[in-house]
Amino acid sequence: MALLVLKFGGTSVADIDRIRNVARHVKREVDAGNEVAVVVSAMAGKTNELVAWAREASPIHDAREYDSIVASGEQVTAGLLAITLQAMGVEARSWLGWQIPIRTDSAHGAARIESIDGDELIHRFCLGQVAVIAGFQGIGPDNRIATLGRGGSDTTAVALAAALNADRCDIYTDVDGVYTTDPRIEPKARRLERISFEEMLEMASLGAKVLQVRSVEMAMVHGVRTFVRSSFDVPESINSNPEALQPGTLICDEEDIVEKEVVTGIAYARDESQISLRRVPDRPGISAAIFGPLAEANVNVDMIVQSVSEDGSRTDMTFTVPDGDLDKAIKVIEENREQIGYELIQSDRGLVKVSVIGMGMRSHAGVAATAFRALAERGINIRAITTSEIKFSLLISSEYTELAVRTLHATYGLDKAF
Amino acid sequence: MALLVLKFGGTSVADIDRIRNVARHVKREVDAGNEVAVVVSAMAGKTNELVAWAREASPIHDAREYDSIVASGEQVTAGLLAITLQAMGVEARSWLGWQIPIRTDSAHGAARIESIDGDELIHRFCLGQVAVIAGFQGIGPDNRIATLGRGGSDTTAVALAAALNADRCDIYTDVDGVYTTDPRIEPKARRLERISFEEMLEMASLGAKVLQVRSVEMAMVHGVRTFVRSSFDVPESINSNPEALQPGTLICDEEDIVEKEVVTGIAYARDESQISLRRVPDRPGISAAIFGPLAEANVNVDMIVQSVSEDGSRTDMTFTVPDGDLDKAIKVIEENREQIGYELIQSDRGLVKVSVIGMGMRSHAGVAATAFRALAERGINIRAITTSEIKFSLLISSEYTELAVRTLHATYGLDKAF
Repeated sequence: MALLVLKFGGTSVADIDRIRNVARHVKREVDAGNEVAVVVSAMAGKTNELVAWAREASPIHDAREYDSIVASGEQVTAGLLAITLQAMGVEARSWLGWQIPIRTDSAHGAARIESIDGDELIHRFCLGQVAVIAGFQGIGPDNRIATLGRGGSDTTAVALAAALNADRCDIYTDVDGVYTTDPRIEPKARRLERISFEEMLEMASLGAKVLQVRSVEMAMVHGVRTFVRSSFDVPESINSNPEALQPGTLICDEEDIVEKEVVTGIAYARDESQISLRRVPDRPGISAAIFGPLAEANVNVDMIVQSVSEDGSRTDMTFTVPDGDLDKAIKVIEENREQIGYELIQSDRGLVKVSVIGMGMRSHAGVAATAFRALAERGINIRAITTSEIKFSLLISSEYTELAVRTLHATYGLDKAF
Repeated sequence: MALLVLKFGGTSVADIDRIRNVARHVKREVDAGNEVAVVVSAMAGKTNELVAWAREASPIHDAREYDSIVASGEQVTAGLLAITLQAMGVEARSWLGWQIPIRTDSAHGAARIESIDGDELIHRFCLGQVAVIAGFQGIGPDNRIATLGRGGSDTTAVALAAALNADRCDIYTDVDGVYTTDPRIEPKARRLERISFEEMLEMASLGAKVLQVRSVEMAMVHGVRTFVRSSFDVPESINSNPEALQPGTLICDEEDIVEKEVVTGIAYARDESQISLRRVPDRPGISAAIFGPLAEANVNVDMIVQSVSEDGSRTDMTFTVPDGDLDKAIKVIEENREQIGYELIQSDRGLVKVSVIGMGMRSHAGVAATAFRALAERGINIRAITTSEIKFSLLISSEYTELAVRTLHATYGLDKAF
């Protein structure tokens, strides 16, 4: 017997037929003797409908009202799943954030979970009741509904698994796991049996859309074993199979991964813009002069590359921002031209950041150099490079995206079975 | 300055444009110096969508889950109206049943309001804030959302007006008041300037659909002056008019009505079925033998007419039920044939109950006799009659509905201006 938290996203609960399919997944786990909490998102499309109404009412609006409006989507799904489970003979009830309660901070619209009181849920598990929890929401210090931001249902599930000390958190989604890279770009991409929290965090941060960054962060901090799997498998067909045979990807501690690879996956993110400031004075405080005003203007700066100046007096500063922020960023820089003192500003939009991720980089030298060689051989120009302990990212022109991803995927042997 | 509770139904908040119109009504009252609480229903069609999903999930379902699902509709409207008011510069916030709280009993799906804590709302009024309240919902003793049943937003508004000791409760709807009868049947029907609580209660009970019966009951018990008016009037055009000139109907104490009429209105209800039990033993306990089992089966019995027996041994018993309950009622009666001991059961569906309502009947004799004569002159056969202090109801064949309503409307002079 295990205590499991299952999470189903919007496409998995898009209509009553799919909700029935979800209920069968839940029933399978209950029949196997497990205690089950299920976290659900809003039915696909519903959150967008609610957000559109709020925007139509007023483009700029009170985040507390927005939260109350959009949280209703998950409220509906939770009730519908509870009814469906009951009709299948599974004892179940729905729980809203304020009923558990899931307490958050006061950052309405992007709140963080501060505490979850799991006592009543655990009491109900002992009585054989399944808890169906509306994801994405909690209650703020002001006694009002607070939402966790887009994708917040993943965070609800992981946080709940941590609070309940669950044995596993199963994230059911429309793909059957985490892949070495995006299968739409590289058909040879393979599903990973296991991936470490750290690698998954980089994958999610760098563009892989399977899981929200914050939920991975939380799983890592609390050591929640998180299993990404497909909700579209027929629940009955996997009824009697042992867990080891389920298709999916287990996100776990590095120590639980026996066969470690140097490189685990290739991620990419489109719609990056590059800004280069030419011949900036090479003096202390220059970074603050550039990036301080950008931060104040809420421009999300990603890669930053500073060239070494030849004579110690002038240097070039290159950084990237999302395409959507480019105009604002240029305006901010130009307004601060005097303080910064650059000679020329150049920019380019529609670039792509390709990232190579792997825990093995910590112990293997020359991993990045292999990539530079492989891309050079195919004539792909690298415009900027950033590195960290377990990944490096390369900025390239978008027309090379597919070629670069496939080249790197093959270079690190990811298309071969382990 | 007055404290007003305004209530807007589903068609008045069907989309963002109409919600803006509602906001203008609210702003007009705020600008006039009033303290305002607004109660809103779900956007037209939304409750039906939610109910359909719940039914699709399972035809028979947990009322607590149903409540949580359908209450989301009002939650959305309340947030949207709050946002819209804020965009117009009116300070406002939304309130859900559990936040105020509006406490109900545990009858999920048809709960009754037990108490409303208005302290925080009144505190906010003093700060100039409008309270936008999700109608139709409260919180039950089990700490779960409980809904008041269809039309429950009217009840929320009146109960809130009572709890806040409001000066008036304005029910904005898609008609501009209460009419002497249904204008679709009798074009000469006139809007009533005022109607007493007791008469309105009979009108609502007997088929007039302007207000829910329970909300009128509550208005009567607590003496809440309730003004029925149209939400489709252009808010600005009535900005500066005094209250007396607003089109609408004030539901109030009988003493506040100067010009009392003998008959106030004609109501009708379709889809009634008649069941007659012939030659039932005329003995004590016979009514209990018939109506006890029907009540247990949740059959809603309306009119009951017992003929006087000729020789004191056998009598006929006639009663009406909604068409939808007829088959069930006959089944129950036949199952209890031995205990009841009737000789013959006869039934007829698709009948109409026409009712004449007026406080003046208490002091005027012969009011009903006038009706019998008028209908007889037009060849309309009366199948059953029931009377109470301030109304009488006649059961007739449905093909005479329009003729009967128009005849009675003219007979009591309702088509003449007072």
